[in-house]
Amino acid sequence: MADHNALPLIILTEKFASLPGIGMKSAQRIAYHVMTMDENSVEEFAQALLDAKKKVHCCKVCQNLTEREVCPICGDPNRMKSVICVVESPKDVTAVERTHEYGGLYHVLHGLLSPMDGITPDKLRIRQLLARISGGGTEEVIMATNPTVEGDATALYIANLLKPLGIKVSRLAFGLPVGGMLEYADEVTLYKAIENRNLI
Amino acid sequence: MADHNALPLIILTEKFASLPGIGMKSAQRIAYHVMTMDENSVEEFAQALLDAKKKVHCCKVCQNLTEREVCPICGDPNRMKSVICVVESPKDVTAVERTHEYGGLYHVLHGLLSPMDGITPDKLRIRQLLARISGGGTEEVIMATNPTVEGDATALYIANLLKPLGIKVSRLAFGLPVGGMLEYADEVTLYKAIENRNLI
Repeated sequence: MADHNALPLIILTEKFASLPGIGMKSAQRIAYHVMTMDENSVEEFAQALLDAKKKVHCCKVCQNLTEREVCPICGDPNRMKSVICVVESPKDVTAVERTHEYGGLYHVLHGLLSPMDGITPDKLRIRQLLARISGGGTEEVIMATNPTVEGDATALYIANLLKPLGIKVSRLAFGLPVGGMLEYADEVTLYKAIENRNLI
Repeated sequence: MADHNALPLIILTEKFASLPGIGMKSAQRIAYHVMTMDENSVEEFAQALLDAKKKVHCCKVCQNLTEREVCPICGDPNRMKSVICVVESPKDVTAVERTHEYGGLYHVLHGLLSPMDGITPDKLRIRQLLARISGGGTEEVIMATNPTVEGDATALYIANLLKPLGIKVSRLAFGLPVGGMLEYADEVTLYKAIENRNLI
């Protein structure tokens, strides 16, 4: 924005433009929209940002984001404790939950292996997964990472760590479009992928 | 998002989804992105929201958004005081300024006439425009509202108020694509539209 614009508006526009999927035009439009919101709504928005950052942290068991010490899924007595579904990020937990067909637990890696980008196994929550499994009770681990190069490499890496421990390791079926993103899959496709999972 | 998600994250997602041009999927992606930002950045973002809302208000002359009492354009001694370009919103001021060809002043209406939506003349800053012009010194008013039904109706309504006062009233040339939005016009098209403006 040109220098005739009010500085706080320029700053706000740049903040919005720094978010994923928002360009400068959209950011400017949103910043002007904020100006038309009433003051209470803007304060609630600012507080929502601070609350999400301060109150939400990782579940000490599955590493999913939660405001409690142990997330509702890990704390649910009705979930199967013997199956762990390993995903890249919290939004993938939401995607699998939307199928309403999976009754086991999760483990969130918070990333995928990508040595070129400096993401080595110690950067992911793999250590925590191994610690969980060494506690006993796990029969199967479903690798539900995206069907991309990094997703496949991560699945294979973790499978090779777990198979010597006598754990069954499976992979989502390639009902998912290869190269696509798990979070955008429709419920039926994702459920089929869970149903047709294969041993690796 | 399902109920396994942390409440502050659900609230933040809904806040982002309430902004123009952001759907639920994008809002969720952005909320998760906020979780990966460091705490300082999130606090700066929240502060930018509050600052924009609290420090920015309307210029008492042209009604554009500014942090000063009188905006930099109205306060610039080098701008032609005899021409006023009337626009719908502050982002249209930015669009016209980008042409680097207009040296007059602006007046921001903060909306367009739309009686079906309850936007009658008293809801716009038309009274302030008349007060400015009755102060003397204005020779021409350029109606630079969007080339839409509401934009044309607003231009005509204001033209009919001003012509009895002996003010020359012109309209942007229809070099703009009809039905399009002024803020997305490229600089050359918009400059041609200013150059070829017609008396109404």
